[in-house]
Amino acid sequence: MRSTSVSDRDATRQAHSQGVGARPGTLIIPDDALPPKLFLFSYDANGFDECECSSYDELMQRFRGQPERRHWIDVRGYGDVELMRRFMQDFGLHPLQMEDVLGDYQRAKVELNDDGQLFLVSRMTEFTSQLEIDDDQLSLFTGSNYVLSFQDDYEDCLDTVRQRIRSGYSQIKQRPPLYLAYALTDVVLDHYYPTMAAIGDYIEELENVILRGRPNKRLLARILQIKKDIVRFRRLVYPEREKIAELLRMPDEVVSEEMKVFFRDCYDHAIQALDLTESYRESVSSLIDLYMSDQSNRMNEVMKVLTIISSIFIPLSFVVGLYGMNFQRENPQGGINPLNMPELYHPLGYPVLLGVLLVIVTGQLVYFYKKGWLTN
Amino acid sequence: MRSTSVSDRDATRQAHSQGVGARPGTLIIPDDALPPKLFLFSYDANGFDECECSSYDELMQRFRGQPERRHWIDVRGYGDVELMRRFMQDFGLHPLQMEDVLGDYQRAKVELNDDGQLFLVSRMTEFTSQLEIDDDQLSLFTGSNYVLSFQDDYEDCLDTVRQRIRSGYSQIKQRPPLYLAYALTDVVLDHYYPTMAAIGDYIEELENVILRGRPNKRLLARILQIKKDIVRFRRLVYPEREKIAELLRMPDEVVSEEMKVFFRDCYDHAIQALDLTESYRESVSSLIDLYMSDQSNRMNEVMKVLTIISSIFIPLSFVVGLYGMNFQRENPQGGINPLNMPELYHPLGYPVLLGVLLVIVTGQLVYFYKKGWLTN
Amino acid sequence: MRSTSVSDRDATRQAHSQGVGARPGTLIIPDDALPPKLFLFSYDANGFDECECSSYDELMQRFRGQPERRHWIDVRGYGDVELMRRFMQDFGLHPLQMEDVLGDYQRAKVELNDDGQLFLVSRMTEFTSQLEIDDDQLSLFTGSNYVLSFQDDYEDCLDTVRQRIRSGYSQIKQRPPLYLAYALTDVVLDHYYPTMAAIGDYIEELENVILRGRPNKRLLARILQIKKDIVRFRRLVYPEREKIAELLRMPDEVVSEEMKVFFRDCYDHAIQALDLTESYRESVSSLIDLYMSDQSNRMNEVMKVLTIISSIFIPLSFVVGLYGMNFQRENPQGGINPLNMPELYHPLGYPVLLGVLLVIVTGQLVYFYKKGWLTN
Amino acid sequence: MRSTSVSDRDATRQAHSQGVGARPGTLIIPDDALPPKLFLFSYDANGFDECECSSYDELMQRFRGQPERRHWIDVRGYGDVELMRRFMQDFGLHPLQMEDVLGDYQRAKVELNDDGQLFLVSRMTEFTSQLEIDDDQLSLFTGSNYVLSFQDDYEDCLDTVRQRIRSGYSQIKQRPPLYLAYALTDVVLDHYYPTMAAIGDYIEELENVILRGRPNKRLLARILQIKKDIVRFRRLVYPEREKIAELLRMPDEVVSEEMKVFFRDCYDHAIQALDLTESYRESVSSLIDLYMSDQSNRMNEVMKVLTIISSIFIPLSFVVGLYGMNFQRENPQGGINPLNMPELYHPLGYPVLLGVLLVIVTGQLVYFYKKGWLTN
Amino acid sequence: MRSTSVSDRDATRQAHSQGVGARPGTLIIPDDALPPKLFLFSYDANGFDECECSSYDELMQRFRGQPERRHWIDVRGYGDVELMRRFMQDFGLHPLQMEDVLGDYQRAKVELNDDGQLFLVSRMTEFTSQLEIDDDQLSLFTGSNYVLSFQDDYEDCLDTVRQRIRSGYSQIKQRPPLYLAYALTDVVLDHYYPTMAAIGDYIEELENVILRGRPNKRLLARILQIKKDIVRFRRLVYPEREKIAELLRMPDEVVSEEMKVFFRDCYDHAIQALDLTESYRESVSSLIDLYMSDQSNRMNEVMKVLTIISSIFIPLSFVVGLYGMNFQRENPQGGINPLNMPELYHPLGYPVLLGVLLVIVTGQLVYFYKKGWLTN
Ligand SMILES: [Mg+2]
Ligand SMILES: [Mg+2]
Ligand SMILES: [Mg+2]
Ligand SMILES: [Mg+2]
Ligand SMILES: [Mg+2]
Ligand SMILES: [Mg+2]
Ligand SMILES: [Mg+2]
Ligand SMILES: [Mg+2]
Ligand SMILES: [Mg+2]
Ligand SMILES: [Mg+2]
Ligand SMILES: [Mg+2]
Ligand SMILES: [Mg+2]
Ligand SMILES: [Mg+2]
Ligand SMILES: [Mg+2]
Ligand SMILES: [Mg+2]
Ligand SMILES: [Mg+2]
Ligand SMILES: [Mg+2]
Ligand SMILES: [Mg+2]
Ligand SMILES: [Mg+2]
Ligand SMILES: [Mg+2]
Ligand SMILES: [Mg+2]
Ligand SMILES: [Mg+2]
Ligand SMILES: [Mg+2]
Ligand SMILES: [Mg+2]
Ligand SMILES: [Mg+2]
Ligand SMILES: [Mg+2]
Ligand SMILES: [Mg+2]
Ligand SMILES: [Mg+2]
Ligand SMILES: [Mg+2]
Ligand SMILES: [Mg+2]
Ligand SMILES: [Mg+2]
Repeated sequence: MRSTSVSDRDATRQAHSQGVGARPGTLIIPDDALPPKLFLFSYDANGFDECECSSYDELMQRFRGQPERRHWIDVRGYGDVELMRRFMQDFGLHPLQMEDVLGDYQRAKVELNDDGQLFLVSRMTEFTSQLEIDDDQLSLFTGSNYVLSFQDDYEDCLDTVRQRIRSGYSQIKQRPPLYLAYALTDVVLDHYYPTMAAIGDYIEELENVILRGRPNKRLLARILQIKKDIVRFRRLVYPEREKIAELLRMPDEVVSEEMKVFFRDCYDHAIQALDLTESYRESVSSLIDLYMSDQSNRMNEVMKVLTIISSIFIPLSFVVGLYGMNFQRENPQGGINPLNMPELYHPLGYPVLLGVLLVIVTGQLVYFYKKGWLTN
Repeated sequence: MRSTSVSDRDATRQAHSQGVGARPGTLIIPDDALPPKLFLFSYDANGFDECECSSYDELMQRFRGQPERRHWIDVRGYGDVELMRRFMQDFGLHPLQMEDVLGDYQRAKVELNDDGQLFLVSRMTEFTSQLEIDDDQLSLFTGSNYVLSFQDDYEDCLDTVRQRIRSGYSQIKQRPPLYLAYALTDVVLDHYYPTMAAIGDYIEELENVILRGRPNKRLLARILQIKKDIVRFRRLVYPEREKIAELLRMPDEVVSEEMKVFFRDCYDHAIQALDLTESYRESVSSLIDLYMSDQSNRMNEVMKVLTIISSIFIPLSFVVGLYGMNFQRENPQGGINPLNMPELYHPLGYPVLLGVLLVIVTGQLVYFYKKGWLTN
Repeated sequence: MRSTSVSDRDATRQAHSQGVGARPGTLIIPDDALPPKLFLFSYDANGFDECECSSYDELMQRFRGQPERRHWIDVRGYGDVELMRRFMQDFGLHPLQMEDVLGDYQRAKVELNDDGQLFLVSRMTEFTSQLEIDDDQLSLFTGSNYVLSFQDDYEDCLDTVRQRIRSGYSQIKQRPPLYLAYALTDVVLDHYYPTMAAIGDYIEELENVILRGRPNKRLLARILQIKKDIVRFRRLVYPEREKIAELLRMPDEVVSEEMKVFFRDCYDHAIQALDLTESYRESVSSLIDLYMSDQSNRMNEVMKVLTIISSIFIPLSFVVGLYGMNFQRENPQGGINPLNMPELYHPLGYPVLLGVLLVIVTGQLVYFYKKGWLTN
Repeated sequence: MRSTSVSDRDATRQAHSQGVGARPGTLIIPDDALPPKLFLFSYDANGFDECECSSYDELMQRFRGQPERRHWIDVRGYGDVELMRRFMQDFGLHPLQMEDVLGDYQRAKVELNDDGQLFLVSRMTEFTSQLEIDDDQLSLFTGSNYVLSFQDDYEDCLDTVRQRIRSGYSQIKQRPPLYLAYALTDVVLDHYYPTMAAIGDYIEELENVILRGRPNKRLLARILQIKKDIVRFRRLVYPEREKIAELLRMPDEVVSEEMKVFFRDCYDHAIQALDLTESYRESVSSLIDLYMSDQSNRMNEVMKVLTIISSIFIPLSFVVGLYGMNFQRENPQGGINPLNMPELYHPLGYPVLLGVLLVIVTGQLVYFYKKGWLTN
Repeated sequence: MRSTSVSDRDATRQAHSQGVGARPGTLIIPDDALPPKLFLFSYDANGFDECECSSYDELMQRFRGQPERRHWIDVRGYGDVELMRRFMQDFGLHPLQMEDVLGDYQRAKVELNDDGQLFLVSRMTEFTSQLEIDDDQLSLFTGSNYVLSFQDDYEDCLDTVRQRIRSGYSQIKQRPPLYLAYALTDVVLDHYYPTMAAIGDYIEELENVILRGRPNKRLLARILQIKKDIVRFRRLVYPEREKIAELLRMPDEVVSEEMKVFFRDCYDHAIQALDLTESYRESVSSLIDLYMSDQSNRMNEVMKVLTIISSIFIPLSFVVGLYGMNFQRENPQGGINPLNMPELYHPLGYPVLLGVLLVIVTGQLVYFYKKGWLTN
């Protein structure tokens, strides 16, 4: 278990590296940022163009050359502060919003700018083999004829949207840019389900380890790690729900009634996801109870073995110790002490004693059996 | 115990199978969907017709042929995507709502469409012999002269409503379609009580096992399963309450004052059900405390047996060991060591020793009795 | 302990017996319902009449014959469905409200009917000798010149109100029927205090059992039963508070400013009662902690006895066992083995050994005393 | 520990003694009520008079004789129902409010009467040597030129306010009666801090007992008592905050903007006090964890002693028992059994055995040392 | 651990020392207050002056002499009550607000005065080597051309802001005083991250101690101390968030739309910080579970050693005790008792017995190995 999960610490460190006390809106590129790749989808109801632009100038030339079409400008990687400044300038992005983009640890949110531009942040999740939730930020700006998206990785979960644009008939091509922003948000939400399914599978596995196998020493640490993941996942999804609720409350001029129908569906999915995290939380808390009780059961079992063995043999040892005493039949003065352990001289002394021992053992076994200590 | 209950996992898998990232409103029919059966009730204040239609065309012909009557179109089974598309088209259902219908894991909700059509989702519950809550979705669309219902099973809990329509005099036949929707919702809510009664009975059974019998190894797992069921049941009922509250807040043109009186009664029932889940939750949490304390009591009992046996016999063993020592009365030089264990040569050595042992045992038994260790 | 308290189960069963899926507003009389008794108080500022009417007709004749007076129609027992129907008809009671009256498990609530009639439900409580809260429903309808009350028992907690009417000068006789409804509600609330006092006394008794006496085996079950009672009591009082708050929010035409002063006092009492339930809840949760810790202390005590006895006598047994060995001074070849246990032949061997044993015991006792194990 | 604290039970009993079901507004004087003392401060910006009036008539004569001055009528002790009735009549106090005054267990609250009179209830606290919070009620009525205060004790925490009036220049003398009411409320709030400081000191003391000394048997009971005090204190402060918030929301005609600045400061103090109760609650819950863990540690220590002693001496006892066996070198037929315990006849048998025992003991001690069982 | 953290107690004591019941607005300087230092930044878009003023008169001369510039009056140390009174008078500060400044334990808050002056309180935090959060108060008053700040220490976390003013081009110099107040608030918020990072590192360290090393006796106390720090930190940040939310709700005349964009960014940071405290809280609660389980595991291990050793050697001791008995082959009458322990006379008696013992030991070791008790 890592008590403070990688991403929590990342967030804290990011904040550090962003220069505590730096001027608000300072653009700080992390050292390990990838060199940006610029992708452009230009489309309208009749078709689409797609390219990976080799330079910002090429991108802007294509974008500005087709003002009647809609565009998805898809920026992946942040490693060029000058490029980021040009985006800020040309698209009128607020420095604080650009800071949020590059900071890469912003909760999901929506901001409505003066010119009707929306700034949308989503968090894309993945459940890693180290049992942690890896999350990346997807930042969207929507304008009258474009969606401008930023993320720090080349790989993402948005390919199904790209395929839908490429396919013959697509809602995306029929509708305004906000629909594309919706489609991207929806796909991010859809990807919460595989993450949750992975968590669910892992919980079931842990439970089987407790119920059937032998919980090894690190098991509780793993349970607690999953618990932390769930709590963290919940904290990712909750602002997503709030973001969508805020979109639904926006005036119709910004988000049309028609678009709200779609966002309402997203809202249902977000609530569903929150419900599932509650389920999982409950499951994990039950796992902890089960683990604690199992620990206690094991102790019980150890104690039972000790008690059974001791209770049987300690009395027997006393009895044989008794007849190991050296009381003398003859006293030093030559007299006879007939009361000193006459049993030892009886012809059947030993066999009778063995019989007595057997009776004692049998009695105890019956007692323990009746208490249910001999069965599990 | 299944940490993640069947239905939670179903929901997650459904979302998967619905194609993560698929176009919103995509109709995906689960592989195991039943072939649809189409039932039609056509009624007015004077009478009713009832049929199982062999085809969609027959259904629509009957429906359209009697515009002055009210109709309940009762669709069971989803296994025909083409049929679903025709319903969408002919009744003007939104693709996202149809997706909700087929997805079969939608929380209870109500949506008011532009044309005054209501879309209502309820969840019908059953407590299975595997100690799980099986829930199925009932989706309703109400129009000016029809209720259109969808569910994935042929069997359901709605037969009492069907009987009421068939009976001579029925409120349903006197009133608008929304009353039928209300009656169906009410019957679903009424069926929460048998589910809760089954849970309550099971809790009592578990408690008796702890208090009277012997908790076997899987008992905690079963308690935790019931706890999860209750939590899950609560999550089913809670949106039901919210749905009804939303109906009560709707304008009188959509839900008349008269109908609100009925829905207010539903609202009381939903709150009552939520109250009971709280009671049960408390009961289960008490059961866990009781189980843990019982575990601890058992350990205590084991330790007492060990302590009593050991405390009695270990000192006795010492005493008899003492007189098993071989200190010699005569030393090798032929002298006499009169201080070396003269007790062994006394004529009453052995009887006196036995008396001493008896006194020790009695003393200890009295001590343990006073401590209450000998009684339970 | 009963995991699901009698009343929770009652409620569930009532719902059952009311016919799951029955037509809303169906009047179902429980099998064990008492035959109704009809009492009538007719009063005005100058005086009052009181009678137990032998029939509904007599009641209505008296009621209708004095339209200028105010009346309390006090119905006890439900065992006559026809009578109930007549009340419904003559007083214009809604079938769903009558269903609530007979169902006898409705939470406290207030409903304002179209004609200004108020429908008020209270729950009267009692703490039984079986440690359970017995609660009964008091249903009130207020009209312009009457209060119509229903309850299922002949005995109730309302006699002080009846006495006040009978007494010479009474506010009730001066004021509108709503004041009588208030007085009845207030008396029900006042009776929550004896219930709470009984619970408080019982908690104190349980605590004394833990701290002074010996917790017997069922003690935790009793603690948990009280905990459940408190939780349940809270659930009875909470809607009472909400009901009164709703009365306070009603327009002045329905509940006059003057009456609101009185209901505000009820509101204070309801909050006070809720505060006390929180106190008791805290107390019970402390009792559970105390019980668990006591269990652990007892285990500790058992272990200490075992450890002290074993630690003293096991080493002693080793020492005496040592001198019980049979190493021979003379070897078979007739030679002498002077190193084989010369202690045994020393004239002071035995006394010295006894001294050594004494030293060991004393040392251990001192050690245990310093650890505080010999004192409690 | 008292599970139900003195004051909770007092409240319950008061309610009892006030006559369950009595007419609302009945004035019931507790049997042990003190005979009232009547104090009067009459002041204006230029000076003040102060007297302890010997009778109600003297008080009213002074009060009515100086209508242009402001007055603090300070009533201590309730033991004269007739006097209370006269106050009610002459100052227009509502019977229900007078009932609240005498009941002495009312939560903090404010009520605005029709004539602009405010009725304010505060609770004055003290932490007693029995570890309980003693609280008394301070009831204030403010009129255009007076504050009328009631309390049941002669001693209180308000002397600093009296001194401020007596001092040369005082805000109180400059300002309207509500300022005096504020000053009294503020002083009650200020006295919450010594109570909290006492609780804090006691918590620290308990903690030292656990960490450094030996927790005696009643320690947990004392911790739980403090926990209950904190919970109770929180319940006293919380309504105080609500009361002040309500004052801040009142229209400016009742509570002027200028006065609101002062009440806002009170509000800060109330929140601060609530924050501290949360801190203390956390501390106590940590104390309980610490106590439980300490209990477990003590058990561990006991078990370690038992295990070390047993593990060392039980094997040794076996070895010496082995050489205490009586296998005979010579059989009855006179033959020799050379395999029967030849060790016993070896010249170095005994010394070698002692060496072996030493090796066993040393090995075990090393093992236990490495496990860290020999150190603490 | 300190159950009540230093700062909580400070707050309580401060309240004490401020004179319980003192006149509201009394300025009480703590005994250990530092002599004030007065710093002044005077700036406009074109440049800035900076000085440490030797006297209040010098400060005011500079401040009043440049009415067209903006000023940051930076007061550090409170040890001069006369100076504080002059600030109150010259800047029109309310006595209650000045009391808050000097009290030094005010939660974060904002107050809007009549003249548009804002009074802002922030709390600056640091994580000390004693594992406690040290927090100091920063109090700001903003006027039309100044920010007046108070704090009790000479050192603070605001130097980055000072550097930004000194640097060539700075937003602060371009914008109104509220921007400076924002910049100071932002820097305080930014410093929450290092505090949180320190807490996070410490949590990880504690966890490693549990998982890898040996938890020493005070470990739980340290865990609980960190838990308390986190709870306390949360209580510091939460009002900060509320303060900023209140600024965002203020009318645009007080806080312009442009400034709100900046405060919205602060708001994001405050929420982020609250989220992290939740994460840490979860981590610490997991640590406690882990610690408790580790304690239980250690007990388990101790018990296993005891059980293994006892279970092996106690039966062996019985067997060797058996053959240490003294049953006699010859009876006193000279007869032979052939049944009395013939084994002792058999030539292979001893070797066979040793073999039997070996078999018993081996059997038990196999049993324990299969139970997994011999491995960890
Ligand atoms: Mg910054
Ligand atoms: Mg990635
Ligand atoms: Mg990233
Ligand atoms: Mg990443
Ligand atoms: Mg989706
Ligand atoms: Mg949907
Ligand atoms: Mg989808
Ligand atoms: Mg089904
Ligand atoms: Mg289904
Ligand atoms: Mg199903
Ligand atoms: Mg119903
Ligand atoms: Mg009803
Ligand atoms: Mg616990
Ligand atoms: Mg019904
Ligand atoms: Mg009854
Ligand atoms: Mg009843
Ligand atoms: Mg009853
Ligand atoms: Mg009352
Ligand atoms: Mg009252
Ligand atoms: Mg009363
Ligand atoms: Mg009192
Ligand atoms: Mg008192
Ligand atoms: Mg007092
Ligand atoms: Mg104050
Ligand atoms: Mg203040
Ligand atoms: Mg003060
Ligand atoms: Mg400092
Ligand atoms: Mg300070
Ligand atoms: Mg400080
Ligand atoms: Mg910042
Ligand atoms: Mg930001």
